[in-house]
Amino acid sequence: MKQYALGIDYGTNSCRSLLIDLADGAEIGSSVFNYPSGEMGVLLDPKDPHVARQNPQDYLDGLIAVTHGGLKQAVGKVPGFSPSQVVGIGIDTTGSTPIPVNREGTPLGLLPEFKDNLNAMVWLWKDHTAHAEAAEITALAHEMRPHIIAKCGGIYSSEWFWSKILRLRRCDPQVFESAFSFVEHCDWLPAVLAGDTNPLTLKRGVCAAGHKAMFSTEWGGLPDKEFLAQLDPSLGDLRDRLYSEAHTSDTRAGSLCAEWAAKLGLPEGTAIAVGAFDAHMGAVGAGAKEGTLVKILGTSTCDLMITPNDKPLADIPGVCGIVNGSVLPGFFGIEAGQSAVGDLFLWLVNHLVPESYGATTGEKFAAMEKALSAQKPGASGLLALDWNNGNRTVLVDARLTGLLLGQTLHTEAHEIYRAYIEATAFGALTIIRRVEEHGVKIDEIINTGGLSIKNAALMQIYADVIGKPMKVSQSEQTCALGAAIFGAAAAGVDSIGALQARVTAVREKVYHPIPENAAVYQELYALYRTLHDAFGTREWSGNLHRVMKRLLEIRAGQG
Amino acid sequence: MKQYALGIDYGTNSCRSLLIDLADGAEIGSSVFNYPSGEMGVLLDPKDPHVARQNPQDYLDGLIAVTHGGLKQAVGKVPGFSPSQVVGIGIDTTGSTPIPVNREGTPLGLLPEFKDNLNAMVWLWKDHTAHAEAAEITALAHEMRPHIIAKCGGIYSSEWFWSKILRLRRCDPQVFESAFSFVEHCDWLPAVLAGDTNPLTLKRGVCAAGHKAMFSTEWGGLPDKEFLAQLDPSLGDLRDRLYSEAHTSDTRAGSLCAEWAAKLGLPEGTAIAVGAFDAHMGAVGAGAKEGTLVKILGTSTCDLMITPNDKPLADIPGVCGIVNGSVLPGFFGIEAGQSAVGDLFLWLVNHLVPESYGATTGEKFAAMEKALSAQKPGASGLLALDWNNGNRTVLVDARLTGLLLGQTLHTEAHEIYRAYIEATAFGALTIIRRVEEHGVKIDEIINTGGLSIKNAALMQIYADVIGKPMKVSQSEQTCALGAAIFGAAAAGVDSIGALQARVTAVREKVYHPIPENAAVYQELYALYRTLHDAFGTREWSGNLHRVMKRLLEIRAGQG
Repeated sequence: MKQYALGIDYGTNSCRSLLIDLADGAEIGSSVFNYPSGEMGVLLDPKDPHVARQNPQDYLDGLIAVTHGGLKQAVGKVPGFSPSQVVGIGIDTTGSTPIPVNREGTPLGLLPEFKDNLNAMVWLWKDHTAHAEAAEITALAHEMRPHIIAKCGGIYSSEWFWSKILRLRRCDPQVFESAFSFVEHCDWLPAVLAGDTNPLTLKRGVCAAGHKAMFSTEWGGLPDKEFLAQLDPSLGDLRDRLYSEAHTSDTRAGSLCAEWAAKLGLPEGTAIAVGAFDAHMGAVGAGAKEGTLVKILGTSTCDLMITPNDKPLADIPGVCGIVNGSVLPGFFGIEAGQSAVGDLFLWLVNHLVPESYGATTGEKFAAMEKALSAQKPGASGLLALDWNNGNRTVLVDARLTGLLLGQTLHTEAHEIYRAYIEATAFGALTIIRRVEEHGVKIDEIINTGGLSIKNAALMQIYADVIGKPMKVSQSEQTCALGAAIFGAAAAGVDSIGALQARVTAVREKVYHPIPENAAVYQELYALYRTLHDAFGTREWSGNLHRVMKRLLEIRAGQG
Repeated sequence: MKQYALGIDYGTNSCRSLLIDLADGAEIGSSVFNYPSGEMGVLLDPKDPHVARQNPQDYLDGLIAVTHGGLKQAVGKVPGFSPSQVVGIGIDTTGSTPIPVNREGTPLGLLPEFKDNLNAMVWLWKDHTAHAEAAEITALAHEMRPHIIAKCGGIYSSEWFWSKILRLRRCDPQVFESAFSFVEHCDWLPAVLAGDTNPLTLKRGVCAAGHKAMFSTEWGGLPDKEFLAQLDPSLGDLRDRLYSEAHTSDTRAGSLCAEWAAKLGLPEGTAIAVGAFDAHMGAVGAGAKEGTLVKILGTSTCDLMITPNDKPLADIPGVCGIVNGSVLPGFFGIEAGQSAVGDLFLWLVNHLVPESYGATTGEKFAAMEKALSAQKPGASGLLALDWNNGNRTVLVDARLTGLLLGQTLHTEAHEIYRAYIEATAFGALTIIRRVEEHGVKIDEIINTGGLSIKNAALMQIYADVIGKPMKVSQSEQTCALGAAIFGAAAAGVDSIGALQARVTAVREKVYHPIPENAAVYQELYALYRTLHDAFGTREWSGNLHRVMKRLLEIRAGQG
């Protein structure tokens, strides 16, 4: 009998479903739901640009809509398909996106008395209201618990769990007092489907806990009460109403309850996997395994690798996201990332590209891609640092900015675009070298995300700069695909590895390094590293006199 | 009886006349002539982008056209005006713009047998075909005559006299052999008017000779025969057919001959001043005197100062244009400059400013100027180096390129424009500090050129960055005005200083530094100097870690 699994991926502006055939990964149904609340699903505060909240009702409405949409498509597409063949459901979401909930686990934002209070809503990952609290947590942790903050790369972010909760305590004590507990978006939805949202017992995922809530079995779970109480006594108390265990996503969070089975049109008792963050499940959907680096190329990028957890993994300087089981059980998940990739290109085209390239953003990108593809590496004489939004890995420093060098009176916009593509490739190579230097071997690179599919020029430059073949994931929805795999694993269908072997694939087109380009890029990378270290580290000391001259020499050879 | 003088300014694309009343500087007639030959007056070679030549016939046609045009206007404007009241004529031109001439001083390009040969035409200042010859001259001079090349800042340019002549010798020996001598554009036209173009006797100006032909009384005039012969034996021979004396421009080159008196409609015998380069006469027209810096703001900028020649002036490192008498008799002329100012802004608006700012270049500039004027110094977090066309003073290095840092994902084009304006102001301040450190006092700064009149935002930023009031020359045609002053001086009307006191002025509007802006710019300048020294000198050694962070701190204070 056929078996199918359902993955649901919650993004910033919409959620989408993917229904796959567990025999071969065939994508038999998919549907998208745009969150109706706020601005493209994000609740904003005109008085404070840092506010970014969401309406939990959107998640529930979306759950029903995309499940029905996916099932309907499958029924039309696959003769004999029946929803009863769906054996498991997995869910991934953005994060850290904590929800204040009451004793029953109901989001406060769903209660009539809080329906107009932004602070009672879901605190979306990109809410930055808690920057002062993040600095406070960072400072106190360095003083009291240096081993914990060391695991966060030395800086606790305003986007993360404790910063947001402390902020709520400070800015809206009434909502804070009404919150019995806090649940990550990715943990709450599986609990909803399982019919038991009790915050004390619902199964929390180790991915969110380990990355954003400073949870580790090394120090007995969440940060200790003494530390939390020092931030605020009520945070110490809250610790008892959170969790002491966190699970990998092959774990069954529960079984589909009667109420939600009816709402979704799926069999009661269907396995529900423990939730996780989108990138982590996306890596699994792209084919993450030992020796593989999965690069998720979007507005920013996320790099994910795994390494067996049976031997201790030393800290990798500048790589702050090492969490046991965050990607796959039995492995340390290693997460790195670049703060601006697609965003960097979009900034350029929206702010600095004249209409001579085209009338629309799409036309401009197409014309620039065509023009830059005709140029050789180094032919523009330009070199950039990809830091317009700071540098996440390996410098872990938000207080960095962009740099472009080598301009003449003839420099054109598409040359700058190419320089920024190259800069992100150099940034990617820097991460790869750092990880490899610390014993994590990378035999294969699989790319996923819009840029990997749409931008052939970029992929070729990445291959040339990184010096390894660039593969591209077959699925365009690797996050939802990964979630579906976890749903199937939670149902006991098979191991993750066996499921991946059946349902994930890479495209036929592989971008291989072109040796003469790779040789030029080795030289350009050396110059990039000089700038990177000169502006990004305290350790570097030296002179930059040869940088512009060397770029001119390379240009002369490539012009 | 009223006295008038005529100044004629030969630019790259056109020439213009200015007829002034020597009592008060009233501009009573002016006319422009666009050179008809080539592309906007420049003869190009589709096979070699470095070629930039001019047709000498354009100069002669222009001379008649602008003189007639100016006189006609004066007749219409000033009752009782008569051409017989014009007592002197001065001429300034671009340079180094050498003309190959025959034994009679007739440009080869005017002869029928050479009319289609670009190599027989005038070699315009911006012709860059002689880059290999420039390098050869530089190398040989370092070996044989280090004291001479030291005066050129260590590098002899492809734009200069000897490079171009050596290039002609190499690329077209037939034309070279046909050239009895070579005359600078600014020396040839006064000789034409005086009716004696004999290359052996026509009066050469010290401005062109000293700056571009390595002429100095310190080493007996032009570089010695042995050195020149080492470059090419025929250059050694040529030295005897050039000149051994060079004159300041208050010297009378001759008197208007009958033929040209008839052509121009001016009295025979009118005094003709020795010619000079445009910027140097422009400085005099703007009011150059001891203690005054004249800044000529155009596509590039030229800074001119004078200091008495009765005591020796030590070399000023990085300032290569120190020539006795080049601006005014009795003074060393000190010329510095920035390689790209207006050009830099034009590059930005033409290549990197979207149509959201306006449909035309002019509209874009206007919208950007308005937008940037609403911002405080440092509010964008940007910092730039103004090296898109290299750095002339104080680094004397063409092999430098632009740099922009501090970009975020929100940086807008007008913020970049402001950063480039600031960068050129920082470059200007660097020149001022260098000159002042070597004992040349600057009590007053007078600006002239299009940007000084049209761009109030720029002038205010210059005042704030440089920390001194910015005055603007009254005349919009200071080069032609300066030429007219020299014409009057050659006629013996009065001394240059006395003439300047009568006919030059600054505008009522003076841009005074705004203290709170100046304070921020002091900090930004320190960061600029760090980048300047780090990328531009071999001596600097250090770390740039604080640059981006300090810019963010300043931004936070100004945002």
